[in-house]
Order: sequence, then structure tokens, then C-alpha cells
Amino acid sequence: MEWVTSPTAMQRTALRLRREGKRIGLVPTMGYLHEGHLSLVREARRHSDVTVVSIFVNPTQFGPNEDLKSYPRDPARDRKMCAQTKVDYVFAPSEADMYPRGHSTYVVEESLSRHLEGATRPTHFRGVCTVVAKMFHLVLPDVAVFGGKDAQQAAIMERIVRDLNFPVEIIVAPTVREPDGLAMSSRNAYLSADERKQAVCLSHALHWAQEAFRKGQHEAAELKSGMAKVILYAPQAKVDYIECVHPETFEIVPVVKKGAVVVMAVWIGKTRLIDNAIME
Amino acid sequence: MEWVTSPTAMQRTALRLRREGKRIGLVPTMGYLHEGHLSLVREARRHSDVTVVSIFVNPTQFGPNEDLKSYPRDPARDRKMCAQTKVDYVFAPSEADMYPRGHSTYVVEESLSRHLEGATRPTHFRGVCTVVAKMFHLVLPDVAVFGGKDAQQAAIMERIVRDLNFPVEIIVAPTVREPDGLAMSSRNAYLSADERKQAVCLSHALHWAQEAFRKGQHEAAELKSGMAKVILYAPQAKVDYIECVHPETFEIVPVVKKGAVVVMAVWIGKTRLIDNAIME
Repeated sequence: MEWVTSPTAMQRTALRLRREGKRIGLVPTMGYLHEGHLSLVREARRHSDVTVVSIFVNPTQFGPNEDLKSYPRDPARDRKMCAQTKVDYVFAPSEADMYPRGHSTYVVEESLSRHLEGATRPTHFRGVCTVVAKMFHLVLPDVAVFGGKDAQQAAIMERIVRDLNFPVEIIVAPTVREPDGLAMSSRNAYLSADERKQAVCLSHALHWAQEAFRKGQHEAAELKSGMAKVILYAPQAKVDYIECVHPETFEIVPVVKKGAVVVMAVWIGKTRLIDNAIME
Repeated sequence: MEWVTSPTAMQRTALRLRREGKRIGLVPTMGYLHEGHLSLVREARRHSDVTVVSIFVNPTQFGPNEDLKSYPRDPARDRKMCAQTKVDYVFAPSEADMYPRGHSTYVVEESLSRHLEGATRPTHFRGVCTVVAKMFHLVLPDVAVFGGKDAQQAAIMERIVRDLNFPVEIIVAPTVREPDGLAMSSRNAYLSADERKQAVCLSHALHWAQEAFRKGQHEAAELKSGMAKVILYAPQAKVDYIECVHPETFEIVPVVKKGAVVVMAVWIGKTRLIDNAIME
């Protein structure tokens, strides 16, 4: 496994691999890897000859009052996990190399990005789209794998690839969960022992919605209020949003059809967690 | 020469050429080709194995009151000129294929784009950056050649390539001029015979500035007022802007150093022309 920090070196390597006819698979991450990320790596490997994991805590996707500085980091552990999962290249650039002085270009998606995560975090998706475009140009992947937990992000990735014609196939891999149902996330590290127990309310609420949907409840308002009731059992949980949306446009739907996505963001104390489920 | 209209077919061809180790040179145009464009094609050929000319009157770079509908078009003549100049592929997609329903992603440059052309045409550069990003992803060029007449556009292209790490080298080719000095432009077709004569005032003003600079005049204010006086000789000419700017950042400079660019936009009747000169 090679650990690459220079964007120029990464791009040169990628151009060479492409010329050699190798298929490149990219898993973009912010590091502090967990089993969820490793499942994305395995998915990338199934679709490519060479697997690249990027590790970069991207400053442009954090708002001014968000957790950029406290975001958990452990490069040594990440390195070991990548090596064990047979990653070929880890691309871990510095902030100064990724955003040189006078950086002034952004990729913006103006439809799906406007609400839900985009409402709570107004410049978040602009930062995500920009860094992903940069990663696509530096790593030149044939396929890029994103986690299903960030459903809105994944839908936006599909949209920017379509709109800007990136020669990249997006694969969205299923959310990996702890045994009790909590979706794996680097931010779970923020939770106290008690909060960790309460955090299971997200997946419980989604499970309830899935069951209700299967029993014939297709009214978004009913599904939402039922989920909010499940969340109420966790005393430190506070709903940011619960919505039923179209899987591609992420427009809010009043009537939930098969394939629609129920998305939610919930504060557990000072930690904001998101999760989602596809209704089927 | 192949005439390609499908974005998918163009990208598939480009991916194949890349795998074969061919260097691709792109000249992005809006068609209605003239000798200026052909000089870009020859420059592209000097740096590549396969030359692609894109012809697309890009709607997103026109403002609501601009000349999108009346912009001159002559595909048959363009085709002939491309064949004669030994272009390998012409990529001429439709508007519907380039901007499918629900298109919502843009590339924005927020520093160099804000003034001069960007002040008069607020969404212009957003449209240019977006369509160029799309062309880069569809044609996968090693080098892309832009005309020096659009100096601000060329500087913005260099900036977006740097900021988003496109694996593309930008070449800016010198402006090609009519025998009397008028910079070649598809929009010259709008000029009446009388306006055509007056349009030479732009290059005369730049010539005056170049001479004054060589004689030691480095004050931007003096250069600008001298140029404005030259323009006054053309009765139907009206200055939009004349500025002295840094060649990379396009920031306005009060003192003009070697390498600075004098840029100008002038209305000749209802036609808006731009031109520029590097002070040396």
C-alpha cells in the first residue's frame, strides 16, 4: 500500500494507471475509519483493479460553528485499517495543498442541496461537491463509492456526475450498523455512554416507519409523527428534521411510494446524527 | 473528420483515445468560426495527437437580455473549415443533451469573475466555467486552447483548472486580427459597414497605450484617459470599461508593470466588443 500526500503525485499515478488500462475505484473519506468505510472499500474493489481511499477532513464542508477542529482523527489507525483491507493507495493531502492561497472555484448544486442537511448546514454541500470534483480530477476513478447513510449526499453526487458529465460511476453502498442498529459514523465517537444508548432511537424510528409502510401507511405526515413519538423515548434526543423524499430529486413527498426515502437528523445532546431508510 | 453530436459517444471515444495513449487537444468554441479559431486549432494540433473542436452556443453563459437567439450560426461552413484545418473530431451537441431537465449543477469562480465582463454580464462566467467543465469531462483533453482576445475568460480558465485540479493544460493563443487591427470575433458580423470602420478604435486605443507604456507612462489613470480619448474619435463608440489589471488575479492595478493587461469593452452601436493588450 502506498501513502500519497502530494496531489501532483496522486494525479500522475492516476494518469499512469489509466494509460495502463487499470480501472480505478475511489472511496472518498474524512478518515477516522470504521467498518462502514471498509465495506465501501470492499465494494470499490469489486468494481476496480486499483483501490484508492482518500482521507481528507475537508474544511470547506464545515460551517463556522461546526466541528472541523474537533473532528476525530487517527491517521496511524486509518493506515493500518487500509492496509488490512488491501487498499492500494491512500491519498491523504494537506489542507494547504488542496486549497492553495486564493482558491476561488466551487462546484455548486442548487436543487437537492437546498433543504434538509443543506438547510441546517448552508455551505456544506458546496464544500462536498467541490472537494469531490477535486478528488475525481486527482484520482481519476472509474467508480466512486459513497455510503448510503449520507443519502442526500449520495443523491447529490449522482446529480453532479450527471450534470457535469464526470466519467465516473457512482455506487451507493448500504449503511453498516452496530449490532443494536445505530448507523456507523465517525461522529458516534462524540457520544457519552448514556447518549450512545439513546442514539439507537434513530434506527428504531426508521424501523417503525418501515413496518408501518409495509402495513399500508403511505401518508408522510403519519409516518413522520409516528417516528417523532419513537424519538420521544430518548430524553436527550431532539429532532432536527424527519422527511419523506423522492430518492433522486430529494423533493419532499406527501404520499410515500415504494423506493421513497425517509431521512432524519437528530441531536443526541451536542452530537448531530443522521440516518435514513428506503421504504420497501 | 468525425462529426459527433452525442455526449455519450464523445466521452466513449475520448476514453478510448486516452487508453490508446493519444494526447487529446480541445478547442472549445461557439461556432461561426473565423481565422482566430483556426489559429487555436493549429496550436492545439502542435500539442496533441487528436484535435477536437467543440461547437456549442452555450445558453447558460448568455444573460436574459443578451444575444443568445441572434448569435450567428453556420454549421455547414464550420464543418468545411474544420475539415480543411484537419480537425479530427467536431463535437456539436444539442442544448437538450447538454442541459437535461433538472440540470442544477454549476462551476463558479468567485474572485476573477466578479468584475469587468462579470459586472456587465453577471452570470456569464458561471455559464462558461460550467460548460467548459462539461466539455473537459466529455472530451478528456490533455490540452485546451483558448483565445487571448477573451483575456479574463482565459485567466479564469487557468484558475478553475488550478482550483479544481483538472488534468488539463491551458494554452492561451494570441489574438488574431484583421489587417486594420480589429480583433477577430464572431460578433463582428453584427457590425454595419460604418460601424466596422469605427470598430478599429479598440485596437487603436490599445496601440496607443502600448506606445505610451513603452515611453514610460505607467500610471493606469493616464493610460485609461488617453485610451478614452482615442475612442472619442469614433462617434458611435461608447466605452463600457477600460482597466489595467494583473495578468493572473485580474485585480485592477493603479501602477502598470510589465506583463499587466489593459482590458476594454466598447459598444459600437448595439454591438459590444472586447479587446486587450499585454503591456511590454
